[in-house]
Amino acid sequence: MEIEEMSENQCRALLERSTIGRLGCSLEDQPYVLPVYFACEAKHIYVLSTLGQKIKWMRANPKVCMEIDEIASQSQWESVVVNGRYRELSEPLDEVEVSRARKLLGTRHRWWINVLAERRTQTDDDLSIAPLFFSIDIESLIGLRASAGEESGASPK
Amino acid sequence: MEIEEMSENQCRALLERSTIGRLGCSLEDQPYVLPVYFACEAKHIYVLSTLGQKIKWMRANPKVCMEIDEIASQSQWESVVVNGRYRELSEPLDEVEVSRARKLLGTRHRWWINVLAERRTQTDDDLSIAPLFFSIDIESLIGLRASAGEESGASPK
Repeated sequence: MEIEEMSENQCRALLERSTIGRLGCSLEDQPYVLPVYFACEAKHIYVLSTLGQKIKWMRANPKVCMEIDEIASQSQWESVVVNGRYRELSEPLDEVEVSRARKLLGTRHRWWINVLAERRTQTDDDLSIAPLFFSIDIESLIGLRASAGEESGASPK
Repeated sequence: MEIEEMSENQCRALLERSTIGRLGCSLEDQPYVLPVYFACEAKHIYVLSTLGQKIKWMRANPKVCMEIDEIASQSQWESVVVNGRYRELSEPLDEVEVSRARKLLGTRHRWWINVLAERRTQTDDDLSIAPLFFSIDIESLIGLRASAGEESGASPK
């Protein structure tokens, strides 16, 4: 098996065809990781959420990391790590961007069902389940990918 | 679709049948997330690694988070978030535990190929690719799972 670094174009291609990533945030150096549905365009990764731990943490510390991968097998996979900053979108200020995020996400996912159903399990207060959009503004992308090489038929010694 | 909290037994069952998790660590409140192969037993999640960014960061800050999921579809998934502490295993001190970790991982994965191949792309120094085992000592487990309910056939308004 061979592992090689991915080019920026290869990283972007993975982001554009993926729908689920694992988002990491941190507060007082306690990391927190969770899966999110996303859509990517240019330098932005858009996510829909409701108010909860991750939003509170990212408001307090906007430094975030997102990992996106495709794992076909143990010797055939791609993984991209994005470092970026959390930026909450609000209306009417970010109306155009919210509309764009809604459109991008809507064409790819039934994201709205997951987000709202999850919140319903945690609260009886309908006011707190108002959805919000945020962007992860991409600062850097690093990717590795593995492909089956000469060693793929080997077995552990 | 319905989303409900998982019991501790349900969380443990997911950990025991899974082989890949997304590990989050943090340094100076910059989170870092990456996929790892693991094996779980009792209060420990065992991982094989070589020296790299994640090990350096976890040595400096042992607070870690690991997210493990099974996503069959957007309305059928389970996700468990583990909070725990990084503990490096060293021989001969932790010889029994290293042997156990090696056995648990070896029966499930071809982990050794991935770990060593990845390192080879980053260094020509064979001395730095000596593998090391670590444990994430589990402090808490929280899980959510979704199953298709009455709303599963609904479409966005």
